[in-house]
Amino acid sequence: MPKISNKGLQMPESPIRKLVPYSEIAKKKGHKVYHLNIGQPDIKTPEAAMQAVKDADITVLEYSHSAGFESYRTKLSAYYKTHGLPVDVKDIIITTGGSEALMFAIGSTMDAGDEIIIPEPFYANYNGFAVASGAIVVPVTTTIENNFELPKIEEFEKLITPRTKAILICNPGNPTGKLYSHEDILKLAEVVKKHDLFLIADEVYREFIYDESEEHHSVLNVPGLEQHAVMIDSVSKRYSMCGARIGCIVSKNADVMGAAMKFAQARLSPPTFAQIASEAALDTPQSYFDEVIGEYKERRDILVSELNKIEGVQVGNPNGAFYCIAKLPIDNADTFAQWMLESYDLNGETVMVAPAAGFYSTPGIGLDEVRIAYVLKKEDLIRSVAILKDAISVYNAR
Amino acid sequence: MPKISNKGLQMPESPIRKLVPYSEIAKKKGHKVYHLNIGQPDIKTPEAAMQAVKDADITVLEYSHSAGFESYRTKLSAYYKTHGLPVDVKDIIITTGGSEALMFAIGSTMDAGDEIIIPEPFYANYNGFAVASGAIVVPVTTTIENNFELPKIEEFEKLITPRTKAILICNPGNPTGKLYSHEDILKLAEVVKKHDLFLIADEVYREFIYDESEEHHSVLNVPGLEQHAVMIDSVSKRYSMCGARIGCIVSKNADVMGAAMKFAQARLSPPTFAQIASEAALDTPQSYFDEVIGEYKERRDILVSELNKIEGVQVGNPNGAFYCIAKLPIDNADTFAQWMLESYDLNGETVMVAPAAGFYSTPGIGLDEVRIAYVLKKEDLIRSVAILKDAISVYNAR
Repeated sequence: MPKISNKGLQMPESPIRKLVPYSEIAKKKGHKVYHLNIGQPDIKTPEAAMQAVKDADITVLEYSHSAGFESYRTKLSAYYKTHGLPVDVKDIIITTGGSEALMFAIGSTMDAGDEIIIPEPFYANYNGFAVASGAIVVPVTTTIENNFELPKIEEFEKLITPRTKAILICNPGNPTGKLYSHEDILKLAEVVKKHDLFLIADEVYREFIYDESEEHHSVLNVPGLEQHAVMIDSVSKRYSMCGARIGCIVSKNADVMGAAMKFAQARLSPPTFAQIASEAALDTPQSYFDEVIGEYKERRDILVSELNKIEGVQVGNPNGAFYCIAKLPIDNADTFAQWMLESYDLNGETVMVAPAAGFYSTPGIGLDEVRIAYVLKKEDLIRSVAILKDAISVYNAR
Repeated sequence: MPKISNKGLQMPESPIRKLVPYSEIAKKKGHKVYHLNIGQPDIKTPEAAMQAVKDADITVLEYSHSAGFESYRTKLSAYYKTHGLPVDVKDIIITTGGSEALMFAIGSTMDAGDEIIIPEPFYANYNGFAVASGAIVVPVTTTIENNFELPKIEEFEKLITPRTKAILICNPGNPTGKLYSHEDILKLAEVVKKHDLFLIADEVYREFIYDESEEHHSVLNVPGLEQHAVMIDSVSKRYSMCGARIGCIVSKNADVMGAAMKFAQARLSPPTFAQIASEAALDTPQSYFDEVIGEYKERRDILVSELNKIEGVQVGNPNGAFYCIAKLPIDNADTFAQWMLESYDLNGETVMVAPAAGFYSTPGIGLDEVRIAYVLKKEDLIRSVAILKDAISVYNAR
């Protein structure tokens, strides 16, 4: 029997999805499972986006341009300019989700054995994209005690080797909810310029910022960083359109875009229906976002305040995206999360969380932490935290 | 300025799409361009597939299962069984086009530096997928003189090294139109079993067979080959749904499917609208295919017969897919194809072909060959060949 690749063996399982079989067991028992584990918002997709797909009159469902519809790229460039980002049509390639944009970014900038520095905890699938490309993730650790502050420049510099090609950040951060300050972005710009690296920024949660005193700072807005900055974007969270699978890679670096275009041509084109929906979504009125952001802000406030009421629980102060890391008074979050699904319920209800260890690259860190996505409505969040509180005490009293 | 990856430099440009800027020049001059260069059928997409998308009542456009809708996989398994292929639901992962299925197949079976043997000329994007994964393509040459017959087993065995992990075939073949016989498939089965390799078969043109005496032989139907066979499929050509971007990877090898599933989880899910269309397309009545195949058979017959009327032109005898390779009495097909777009017209019309050299991996082969896709209606094909004939004589008389 032929053997599969080492790459295939090394590909990480999704820490977000690996407990799914246990949640299915819980559901088969008739238990209700509150899903705090996934970033699938319950927010309604803008109707105009869905209607555009219904209205599309397509006789032959053809390939689109490998870079995506020209009309969509043109409108997207205008969208970015309206939002203060200097993005021209030629700087954009439409991708199949932010996932593919990340694959193109890594493929265009890194060879097998090259290193990419990422502040941990980080979006777990970065590991998968790195393994698929043969790149090596070098983590720089941030901690809940320090509210996941960006490490000092010296911490990055300690890790830079001749094989280092890029620093990757997620801003605001999944799973931490951390929003980097303008000063943070300038610090990163300085280090990548000094060491001639790329700065890849996953900015798919750009709008999800909950404190009026704070604003998002894109890597695309740093003078002198044009040849270093690669931005990853997606419609998934912005318009609650995760199932569309549309994102984009954006850079002023013509070599990066030229290489990314060859990756894009190899896979022919991004999906057509989803591009129609995404192009129409650009007309979504500001009132939609105001409502969504208002809703998430309330959810965050409730979640953090409820979690803080549980003795021994430590939460960061998430100021963006819709996740937080919580440190729980338990021995092992993996065991605990599985136990909540397999062996526990409170009046027929239980909670599913994502053990945080899978978001760290350094072994042995974050074992007592979980990622919580606040994508459920407020009453469900309150109920979920009540269940979590009960579960912790039952678990520790076993 | 940071440097892009060697991978990014090595990624091949699409030989199918690289002449696009010249066709745009021709169109700007007001010339009509007949596109014999791309495999974009003009066949109508089944209405039921498009209607299913219009009818879908989606409030939140959510991620689907990473392996694709369970309902779609279930129906697809039944479809394969009806068509004589023993495919269970667990053997299928829905992918974003056949392209992604190929990426998953290569990623799951090959590491950087591993070798994959492919009969050339082959679908040019195999090169791109190999470069992206770090795998090395080892071509085994087939020739128009021999009607692109599968090389003898000894020719494959000469190329097998300790790094060889798989043989990849496209059956029926793009760009050759070659349909492999049952004996061919058994020969390949023998060599992969003997050397413990995978046999990856791109079978996306399975239905496109034009001689009643011939039938398709899938790698999934060879007893004893279960652990070696990986099949790639797509809805793009079957239902003229190239823009959907839905395909699948199929294998009985649980390790391969386990690895492929981790790649699938990393990119979250295939596109939702396109899955709805593809699931509905499974109900397309046989009459649709009868009509389509009848149409393509007529196109093939006309194209081959018209081409054979041009002095000095040699055509294979394509018995499947909708491409053929033609050897032209010219010095260089790259130069000729560009010249036809840039400097030539016949009463304001010209023709775009794909130079075949890009489909060969061995340098210097196929320089006087082009790939012609017969995806245009018959009168356009006749007109195109008439233009091609005139262009050859004008070009050679320059």
